[in-house]
Amino acid sequence: MKKYLTILSCLLILFSCKETLNNEILISNEDELISAISNAKPGDELILKNGVYEDLQIKFIANGVEGNPITLKAETPGKVSIEGESNLQLGGSYLVVEGLHFKNGHTPTGQVIRFKVNDTLIANHSKFTNCVIEEFTQPDRDVSDHWVELWGRHNELSNNYITGKSNFGPTVMVMLKGNEHIKNYHQIVNNHFGPRPRKGGPHGETMQLGDSGTSMTPSHTNVENNLFERCNGEVEIISSKSNNNTFKNNVFFESEGSLVLRHGNYANIDGNIFIGNDNSEFIGGIRVINTGHWITNNYFYKLKGNIFRAPLAVMNGIPKSPLNRYNQVTDAVMAYNSFIDCKTPFHFSVGSNVSQSNVLPKSEIRSARPIRTVVANNILYNETPFNYPIKNYDKVDGVLFKNNYTNSENKSEVKPSGLITVQMEVNTVSEFLKTPKVNSDKVYNGFDFQTIETDLFGNKRTSENNKVGAILNTAKNTVLFDKSNYGTDWFITEKEKIEPKTVTVVSKEDLVTAIKESNSGDIISLKSGTYNITETLSINKNITLTSSDKNNKATLMFTSSGKAFEMKPKGILHIDAVILKGNNEQVAFKTLDKNMTSAFGLWLKDTEISDFNSVLEVSKGAFADTVSVRNSLIKNCAKGIQLNKETNDKGDYNSEFVYVIGSTFDNVGEEVLNYYRGGYDESTIGGNLKFTNNTIMNSGKMEKNNILIKNRGIVNVEFADNTFKNNPVKVVAILWGEKGQKPENNTVVNSGEIKVVQNLKLKLMY
Amino acid sequence: MKKYLTILSCLLILFSCKETLNNEILISNEDELISAISNAKPGDELILKNGVYEDLQIKFIANGVEGNPITLKAETPGKVSIEGESNLQLGGSYLVVEGLHFKNGHTPTGQVIRFKVNDTLIANHSKFTNCVIEEFTQPDRDVSDHWVELWGRHNELSNNYITGKSNFGPTVMVMLKGNEHIKNYHQIVNNHFGPRPRKGGPHGETMQLGDSGTSMTPSHTNVENNLFERCNGEVEIISSKSNNNTFKNNVFFESEGSLVLRHGNYANIDGNIFIGNDNSEFIGGIRVINTGHWITNNYFYKLKGNIFRAPLAVMNGIPKSPLNRYNQVTDAVMAYNSFIDCKTPFHFSVGSNVSQSNVLPKSEIRSARPIRTVVANNILYNETPFNYPIKNYDKVDGVLFKNNYTNSENKSEVKPSGLITVQMEVNTVSEFLKTPKVNSDKVYNGFDFQTIETDLFGNKRTSENNKVGAILNTAKNTVLFDKSNYGTDWFITEKEKIEPKTVTVVSKEDLVTAIKESNSGDIISLKSGTYNITETLSINKNITLTSSDKNNKATLMFTSSGKAFEMKPKGILHIDAVILKGNNEQVAFKTLDKNMTSAFGLWLKDTEISDFNSVLEVSKGAFADTVSVRNSLIKNCAKGIQLNKETNDKGDYNSEFVYVIGSTFDNVGEEVLNYYRGGYDESTIGGNLKFTNNTIMNSGKMEKNNILIKNRGIVNVEFADNTFKNNPVKVVAILWGEKGQKPENNTVVNSGEIKVVQNLKLKLMY
Repeated sequence: MKKYLTILSCLLILFSCKETLNNEILISNEDELISAISNAKPGDELILKNGVYEDLQIKFIANGVEGNPITLKAETPGKVSIEGESNLQLGGSYLVVEGLHFKNGHTPTGQVIRFKVNDTLIANHSKFTNCVIEEFTQPDRDVSDHWVELWGRHNELSNNYITGKSNFGPTVMVMLKGNEHIKNYHQIVNNHFGPRPRKGGPHGETMQLGDSGTSMTPSHTNVENNLFERCNGEVEIISSKSNNNTFKNNVFFESEGSLVLRHGNYANIDGNIFIGNDNSEFIGGIRVINTGHWITNNYFYKLKGNIFRAPLAVMNGIPKSPLNRYNQVTDAVMAYNSFIDCKTPFHFSVGSNVSQSNVLPKSEIRSARPIRTVVANNILYNETPFNYPIKNYDKVDGVLFKNNYTNSENKSEVKPSGLITVQMEVNTVSEFLKTPKVNSDKVYNGFDFQTIETDLFGNKRTSENNKVGAILNTAKNTVLFDKSNYGTDWFITEKEKIEPKTVTVVSKEDLVTAIKESNSGDIISLKSGTYNITETLSINKNITLTSSDKNNKATLMFTSSGKAFEMKPKGILHIDAVILKGNNEQVAFKTLDKNMTSAFGLWLKDTEISDFNSVLEVSKGAFADTVSVRNSLIKNCAKGIQLNKETNDKGDYNSEFVYVIGSTFDNVGEEVLNYYRGGYDESTIGGNLKFTNNTIMNSGKMEKNNILIKNRGIVNVEFADNTFKNNPVKVVAILWGEKGQKPENNTVVNSGEIKVVQNLKLKLMY
Repeated sequence: MKKYLTILSCLLILFSCKETLNNEILISNEDELISAISNAKPGDELILKNGVYEDLQIKFIANGVEGNPITLKAETPGKVSIEGESNLQLGGSYLVVEGLHFKNGHTPTGQVIRFKVNDTLIANHSKFTNCVIEEFTQPDRDVSDHWVELWGRHNELSNNYITGKSNFGPTVMVMLKGNEHIKNYHQIVNNHFGPRPRKGGPHGETMQLGDSGTSMTPSHTNVENNLFERCNGEVEIISSKSNNNTFKNNVFFESEGSLVLRHGNYANIDGNIFIGNDNSEFIGGIRVINTGHWITNNYFYKLKGNIFRAPLAVMNGIPKSPLNRYNQVTDAVMAYNSFIDCKTPFHFSVGSNVSQSNVLPKSEIRSARPIRTVVANNILYNETPFNYPIKNYDKVDGVLFKNNYTNSENKSEVKPSGLITVQMEVNTVSEFLKTPKVNSDKVYNGFDFQTIETDLFGNKRTSENNKVGAILNTAKNTVLFDKSNYGTDWFITEKEKIEPKTVTVVSKEDLVTAIKESNSGDIISLKSGTYNITETLSINKNITLTSSDKNNKATLMFTSSGKAFEMKPKGILHIDAVILKGNNEQVAFKTLDKNMTSAFGLWLKDTEISDFNSVLEVSKGAFADTVSVRNSLIKNCAKGIQLNKETNDKGDYNSEFVYVIGSTFDNVGEEVLNYYRGGYDESTIGGNLKFTNNTIMNSGKMEKNNILIKNRGIVNVEFADNTFKNNPVKVVAILWGEKGQKPENNTVVNSGEIKVVQNLKLKLMY
């Protein structure tokens, strides 16, 4: 009997412990939080009261146990915002953070969320879930950070919405430096990665797993069921740089980049969806480097990219490659994928650069072609048949093609017998989802193909029921994906649209007030007449200035000192049919000197600019998404458009797109345009210049370098139909032959010459 | 009832099938073998009748099933020998080969045993067991092959005795080219790897797992419980070049090399025994390169090697190393090892060559020091205390030392607090086995150390019972290892010793007969007098020629054409106190022009050689273990000792050791010695020259290169106490400073100079 009593009392104690363990602690300030964390026991819930927490740097150091974690959460999900100079570090086991909203600020350290406090306080079995990190970006684009840094093992990043990082550094980073962090089996699942703006150069990945220095480690991170929406940071949306990672059932929606297997081996890319559109050649698919990757059951839709941005880009490697360069592709399997309206899905030996042997060191020459690689059971369907399914940049002699089907002829140079042209019926199931039917159920059973057990939707592939392509069968009205399945259960990602309004102004005072008070998207219409502007006009939203009567344009006469317009982050200025005049001393458009947190834009149309010292100047960290000058006249300025301050020579540049079209430059003293990108790395492809149908005259008289239009290092250049007349320079422009740049139909009179240099010598970036 | 009958009849059928399956097929020739293989069914035993099978190339293509393999075996193990141009290929599943003896021949292809017939006929779940491969070596050393090439998965190489490979190429090779061969879980167990002679240069490994091109693949090969006895092929006994291999409980007995983690990562080296001796600095331990290796419970005994041959050599890497060079050591763990009488167990940053930046390309500079590396719970015991436990070639700033104990002071430059000097009592348990006792049971519990579950002998390490060092406890009279546990159950590896006999000869005829008829080891004693030798004396065994009366030496007067002695494979000639005279046209000692299958040797002592055209000439593939000239006189010869035909510049050379000691060279027309090794690769360390106490005079008159003693590329050179007098050359010798070579106490009179070049420019080997 005594024994029973003892057991009973033990049970009671256990039970009462369990009661006290499930403790809810309400917290309203930092001190209470610190105290609660230091006393936290398994099962505790540390609840941040609704409100705004400024400059909160949380060290969540505690130890829960399996099934009984310690939770730090918002009283109401989304009603707790962490702002200012804030961040969160986790150290310990079984920790959960949920419902927080990081906004209006940035981290004072290198990370917003870090699964490690220091080298001995590492988080394991912990998660960050149902949270939002929204534009929590560094004021200075050149300052690098990571928003989520995963360390330790068995951690989870789930159901978050993460958007708007515009500074240097991958958004999410998996760290592998040390045995404590390998074989981590992290789960990055069900997140919604919202738009990441173009960064202009490298280091704008949405996710990176390891780096070249840890690329030999087994990571085993699972990236599953995430939505990547317009993640446009750079050419790599995801950069996998470690071994044994899984990418499964993710959706890449109109994201200007690719899932890139950059370093490391044996990735599994299964059942992902890549959606492009008819207009963009920037949206890529999968880029393959290294050994042993399996790429199966993926669905590629309307991807129009080429080379590095191809739907499926299989690269050439460097023989005996250095650790941080390009290993050969070997032992890869690409099977059961569907390419719908992708024109040319397969690009082989991407990056082959044998022709550049004279400007590149031997250790840069990618001459090792893919070997022991199998391409099987894929479907290629184009609604309008397209006859070039394969683009090759070298011989394709190490790839086995088996049982691939296309509905187009194959007029490519490479014509494998394993790519068969057949008639296909197609079923349009729902938006983005087309299922072509091949009248052949013969699939190729390669080595270990029995491990490809299901299709994109999880239907079992059996010997009785199997088919080529990503999809075995679909129910009626199957949707390809449902946006509401990703991210938090509380944050609304779609902003309400405000209808833009037009404000008409007649005086300088009206104009200044209107610029200040208008909403983003509004139009300010200037009545005809001259406006004497004595102050700098500051632009921090999307505004259009236009003349009410385009046949009788308004004139803005600036006597303000230094600059006419100051371009601030998010300032996008459209000027349509207005005349701007300066006093010969100002810059017409100039960014802030620092803290250009996010991109600006400048769109000029039917506009005259004269008597300024220079047209556009930017600071080092500044970045324009677009600078556009159309049908405009620029005259009597000392300098023109200057986008040349990113001189790190690490692949960065000051504007993604520059359009100068149908415009006239008359009497610009020095350079008309200076658009610069320095540093060699073929994988960071950027800078886009369209310079067409312009007339440039009487310019360059004071130009020291004797070059009128400078576009050094810019990768994509169109240069056509321009007239150059009486410009006393030696060189009009230098184009880069290797990148396909060539002058077309330009008229050059008394103005030096247009040069083409085949291989530009650039500083290696690494 | 009907149902039961059906089941019963099924069972009967099954049973009778099983009966017929266990079929023994006796085979006596190749045709029968081919027929038997083509008809083989699971359970069949294909039995080769006892006898010798010449020129038999077996393609064992068949499919057994689990538990019911198809076996090819000797009628009596060891009584079936495969000779001549023979080999064996396996293709299929569940195949067993046992009891065969490969000898007196070589393979006509690149492999003796290959677990693959072609790219689609690969062996899986198959084994080669209880066999012997004995001196089945290519006639030409320059022809490369592998004796066992493992392909496929789950294959086994067990209980074999394999010895005597003297040509190029690793003895056992694990091949990983293709997904069919990765994650192979091969078992290489219980084998006895008998002596492999010094090869002279690289490509003499006893085992290699993958190559740099497949070094990123997971191999998962298990090398367990093998004996490596005097495997002296080259500096790497085992070269691990892939991931996840295990090396467990192997014994490395007086083998001149190391277990080298050359490429690939995450090896597990546990419970191995390395036995050296007091005399050799060639016997190494473990050399570490790359990431994530665990080196635990190993026992190192009397290892006297340094640098690349150190007991534990941890290398510096090349930053961002090319695939085939040296990656940095990171995340390594070296714990619970015992170093007994090893003097300086730890060598860190081996291969550091920052000082050579001016002769080597940047991609060769090993400047990346080991990082995130843990050295813990090791014991260092020296019977005679030795106060330099650590040798460092760079800073040691990335290594954590914890709870290591030594019985000596630490006067090394590196003095970590985690290496503690304590008194130790030592127990000598049995031969080679000493167990020092540290009066401290505190062990360091590093990350994941709980995975080190047992000690060297399999005793459990628990929190109650744990200790530093490889051994927890031993029973009385425990033996460290028992040679009879390795290899076959039938082959006797110890040859019976024949007592050498002495034959006294008085005439040329006697001498010729004696050389032909004597046994290896015999001594031929020449009575005083002159012997006119008209024919070439051919040496193919170990023979000593000596004078019966050393004060009145016999003279051999050669009129034979071409050469006096022809050195054949295995010919080891000792000449002690004899006078050799030529007719100025012959070579005194010359090897075969080709097919120098195995090493020769030449030992001259108290001997006079005069009036030859040259003293020693070798052919390209020829290799001497030792060429020794002591207290001898060489005069009136056009050329001296020439070991300079290995000009591939791939690290090879014609003799492992060259000793020239206490001898006189008088009137040698051209070079006195030419000993050459070409090609840069620091990991292939070779050529050993001792040139001391000699007098060289009146020589070099006809020398075109103006160098008297040529030792270009030879790594280890001692050059001291010589006298050079009246030799009309510019240079006596050029020594290589970087390798520690320096002239000591030489007298040079009217003879040019002795140069020291710090960094020799050599052709890169790869």
